Amino acid sequence: MAGTLKVGNRAVLTKTFSEEEVCSFADLSGDRNPLHLDNKFGAASVFGRRIVHGMLVAGLFSGLIGMELPGPGSIYLGQNLVFRAPVFIGDTVTVSVEITKVRQDKPIITLQTLCVKDAGTVVIEGEAVVKAPAA
Amino acid sequence: MAGTLKVGNRAVLTKTFSEEEVCSFADLSGDRNPLHLDNKFGAASVFGRRIVHGMLVAGLFSGLIGMELPGPGSIYLGQNLVFRAPVFIGDTVTVSVEITKVRQDKPIITLQTLCVKDAGTVVIEGEAVVKAPAA
Repeated sequence: MAGTLKVGNRAVLTKTFSEEEVCSFADLSGDRNPLHLDNKFGAASVFGRRIVHGMLVAGLFSGLIGMELPGPGSIYLGQNLVFRAPVFIGDTVTVSVEITKVRQDKPIITLQTLCVKDAGTVVIEGEAVVKAPAA
Repeated sequence: MAGTLKVGNRAVLTKTFSEEEVCSFADLSGDRNPLHLDNKFGAASVFGRRIVHGMLVAGLFSGLIGMELPGPGSIYLGQNLVFRAPVFIGDTVTVSVEITKVRQDKPIITLQTLCVKDAGTVVIEGEAVVKAPAA
């Protein structure tokens, strides 16, 4: 598969997080920060309401990489994340990964990872490094 | 709270991921890479068995930051991750965050984030940037 990977290849998905998914991630991660779980706390915060865990949203990059680009068998080597704007429960986000570099010596690729919402507000940006599955 | 944050402050937790948690994260992230979900595929992989999603393990940093250091009300600004070794279902990992920098002008801190297993094998290393809750 690595042979067909080219700079500019891109995969995209959209997702809307529910109340239940936020609670589920709180269980998995142990992150019960009231900024994510408590309506009153969220209302009093700088965001005006509670927000989806950034690391839950970032999990969508794992989904795109593991399922689409480069796809099943991929091995995640690294991920940088900058959280630029909050995601609220019910927000629809668009997540994309795009190959920016393909190593010639090994099946290792670098991807730009981006999550936006609404009319293009950047939610998360960053970069992933992935070992592509054998061709 | 930011006033009490000092370089060297550290929080630690241990965790063992179950089969159910890996399936739950696959649902949340959409990452059904057979490397995580399929015993046969895992057995044929370089790891010899299926592995826990790196982004699920990394979610423990969110847990430590949101619950302990700096704790409830923290706002995640960034996270860098390098995945160095696999975590298998049933492995016990030790995750730590340690403050390496405290900004003087704003309540923003940098933390070294580390996950190890067994006799010190580094699983994930990286760095987080977090806005601490108001004092």
